[in-house]
Amino acid sequence: MARIVVDVMLKPEIHDPQGEAIAGACRRLGFGEVISVRQGKRFEVELDDATEAAAGRVAELAAELLANPVIEEFTVHPAR
Amino acid sequence: MARIVVDVMLKPEIHDPQGEAIAGACRRLGFGEVISVRQGKRFEVELDDATEAAAGRVAELAAELLANPVIEEFTVHPAR
Repeated sequence: MARIVVDVMLKPEIHDPQGEAIAGACRRLGFGEVISVRQGKRFEVELDDATEAAAGRVAELAAELLANPVIEEFTVHPAR
Repeated sequence: MARIVVDVMLKPEIHDPQGEAIAGACRRLGFGEVISVRQGKRFEVELDDATEAAAGRVAELAAELLANPVIEEFTVHPAR
């Protein structure tokens, strides 16, 4: 069994109002050193496949189902 | 300037219907080897603080603002 993580973030050029709202809240609530926040998604996928191919399969899965390639980018790595 | 990542996931004992729905969709859509998916959040925080203290400040921020300690757990690490 493999445990693979997919991190999905908005592309840098895509405006992130949710992250901006969070950054504003941080500054108001005493964390004045916060410059910016961007929010994304993290998926932990357990696969019945312990081979080297597992990460590749999860990358296919991410490209088809977990991320929107128009506005998001993703990285795939084994869970720590 | 420091760039710190906060990963927020539901605690393992908390039911994750969103992740289960995603796992079901993966299996229906040709990824039969998917055992389970859990979905969480990833925050990238930019701080005006390049000292060693930056990660500690972001951990405070995460505990107060980014995670709900009743049902979620978080990890803090420098952005790669």
